[in-house]
Amino acid sequence: MKGEEKILLSHGGGGKETSELINGLLFKELYGPAVSGNAKSLSLLEDAAIIKIGSSPSKIAFTTDSFTVNPLFFKGGDIGKLCVAGTVNDLSVMGAKPLFLSLGLIIEEGFSFNNLKNIMKSIALEASKTGIAVVAGDTKVVPLGKADGIFINTSGIGEVLYENISVYNIKEGDVIIVSGHVGDHGSAIMSLREGIDMDVDIESDCASLWGMIDSVLKTGVHVGAMRDATRGGIAAVLNEWAQAAGAEIFIDEGKIPVKNAVKGFCELLGFEPYQLACEGRAVFAVRPGFEKKALKTLKSHPLGKNAEIIGFVQKRGGAGYGKSPGGRVILKGIFGVNRVMEAPSGELLPRIC
Amino acid sequence: MKGEEKILLSHGGGGKETSELINGLLFKELYGPAVSGNAKSLSLLEDAAIIKIGSSPSKIAFTTDSFTVNPLFFKGGDIGKLCVAGTVNDLSVMGAKPLFLSLGLIIEEGFSFNNLKNIMKSIALEASKTGIAVVAGDTKVVPLGKADGIFINTSGIGEVLYENISVYNIKEGDVIIVSGHVGDHGSAIMSLREGIDMDVDIESDCASLWGMIDSVLKTGVHVGAMRDATRGGIAAVLNEWAQAAGAEIFIDEGKIPVKNAVKGFCELLGFEPYQLACEGRAVFAVRPGFEKKALKTLKSHPLGKNAEIIGFVQKRGGAGYGKSPGGRVILKGIFGVNRVMEAPSGELLPRIC
Repeated sequence: MKGEEKILLSHGGGGKETSELINGLLFKELYGPAVSGNAKSLSLLEDAAIIKIGSSPSKIAFTTDSFTVNPLFFKGGDIGKLCVAGTVNDLSVMGAKPLFLSLGLIIEEGFSFNNLKNIMKSIALEASKTGIAVVAGDTKVVPLGKADGIFINTSGIGEVLYENISVYNIKEGDVIIVSGHVGDHGSAIMSLREGIDMDVDIESDCASLWGMIDSVLKTGVHVGAMRDATRGGIAAVLNEWAQAAGAEIFIDEGKIPVKNAVKGFCELLGFEPYQLACEGRAVFAVRPGFEKKALKTLKSHPLGKNAEIIGFVQKRGGAGYGKSPGGRVILKGIFGVNRVMEAPSGELLPRIC
Repeated sequence: MKGEEKILLSHGGGGKETSELINGLLFKELYGPAVSGNAKSLSLLEDAAIIKIGSSPSKIAFTTDSFTVNPLFFKGGDIGKLCVAGTVNDLSVMGAKPLFLSLGLIIEEGFSFNNLKNIMKSIALEASKTGIAVVAGDTKVVPLGKADGIFINTSGIGEVLYENISVYNIKEGDVIIVSGHVGDHGSAIMSLREGIDMDVDIESDCASLWGMIDSVLKTGVHVGAMRDATRGGIAAVLNEWAQAAGAEIFIDEGKIPVKNAVKGFCELLGFEPYQLACEGRAVFAVRPGFEKKALKTLKSHPLGKNAEIIGFVQKRGGAGYGKSPGGRVILKGIFGVNRVMEAPSGELLPRIC
């Protein structure tokens, strides 16, 4: 008898093991054996599902995210800000204007009223920035020792204003842009949690991106795919794109914007900045010819002022839509040597969001 | 200095303390001081928010619920069946056809793959009964000892097919109907958890009610309010109605359908069946004249065959919409003595759903 398989922390890391759990177990049981090519399951690979209700012509984006971040309060934000921004961003990167939010609280017995109040204040403030309305809620309390302070689920509904932005809509020649410095959130959480004292404080980049994204899309820039980089950083985003589209994406490491403090933190601990979580950065794949306009528009927005072009889609596999022979990300290192930019794996940092 | 206020288990019981937490803290912080009369906050008192997207004429119901039930597997269901049925029912009682479901998993490190598979199978099976599609998901893993097996959040979207069903739409003379035996789920979970050996097994009533509810509504029965009885049982539902509408609701205790095994269980432990959770029972307030048709239609459906008329709305306060002077539920006891049917309070049974 082989030992019973169990869930590991790495299954929640947002990298390889998470994909394996989702594709190997969750999808299989939820959608049965005929999973590949199934529209329902495919939509789960996007940041939000695109749905239609009744006879209405409107397309609606629908997404969900649970937040288990530890610690609950950190420099640059808290779980309240994070749970609004995270869901706002998941809708925004599908070209959907965020409209409605639900709030599911799981609170541990003994949790402080004051902390709960402060988290609610953050939620109200962050929601007001985008104008998303909290319209549904649920509160559960579990005994001491059966949770860790508070876990928050937010689900969001948005109206799709810009169509056909999809992980499957990457094309050869698309230019890859990142909207700002990478790895700030991951470094901020990790340095706080591990008690690492940095010379310079690192602050989470946690932010709601609809305003910035809308400003780009409304200029008419043709965006193929867009995603907010969270768990697993831009490495997770780029590898998912490469695999979903069967594409080879080329990234110039020297072009990736990274703050010096984050670089120092990564050197100290042996991390790659591009594998660390962001919570207020978007990655764009824009059709060639649109990159300058996209970059200029991004740079004129406070949340995009450090945006950079970091690479392009070198080629796309010919084995058909959604297939992934050789989908990979090539990283031209700062010393000129090419290597593969791996999708993060292992328990890089549990409970980052 | 007074001691810091902390969250208690009773804040999650679905009774008085839950209302106090929601109204006193959550709403206040989320919606600011001008909360009373605020449309956004009022909608939170319903089982689902009714929203509109863009210029579409369709009304959409949107709801969220987190499930922390302990144990995860019980007679009559498991957390998978429960998390689908619970959200399907929250949409259904707003007159909305359940269409789309999101699934937010928070899994404790070390949780068994087999249990996860079985829960996913239950979700797929229960969703297929109503035809609701799981279209969005999220998976988080937290370290051993920071959760309790698995917590699941489901949010749901439905299309409102029947309008104006609302907790505020109770009228004098409305007839109160319950769709089946009360307290089965609460008794099943509690007897299992406390290791109480009953002569007769008690099985959870956990079920998705859209089919049954739709069968009633499509006959043209005029339903003022409708709600599924979950935490706090029918006592919680009736008290919320009484308070929201400023109404006095009269209930005949002898008419409330309760299984003998549940009665015995309650006598043994000093509970009131009407305060125990159900997970597959709906309470209706139908306009006078429609009660016979409603009852007949319910009884012809497998999930409503034990439906009964249990009371009526005696009077509705005159102090204006949404005010609650003297909103209360009067219970005519089985020995003919009237008393108040209290909203449940205290930690009746944490983690019942």
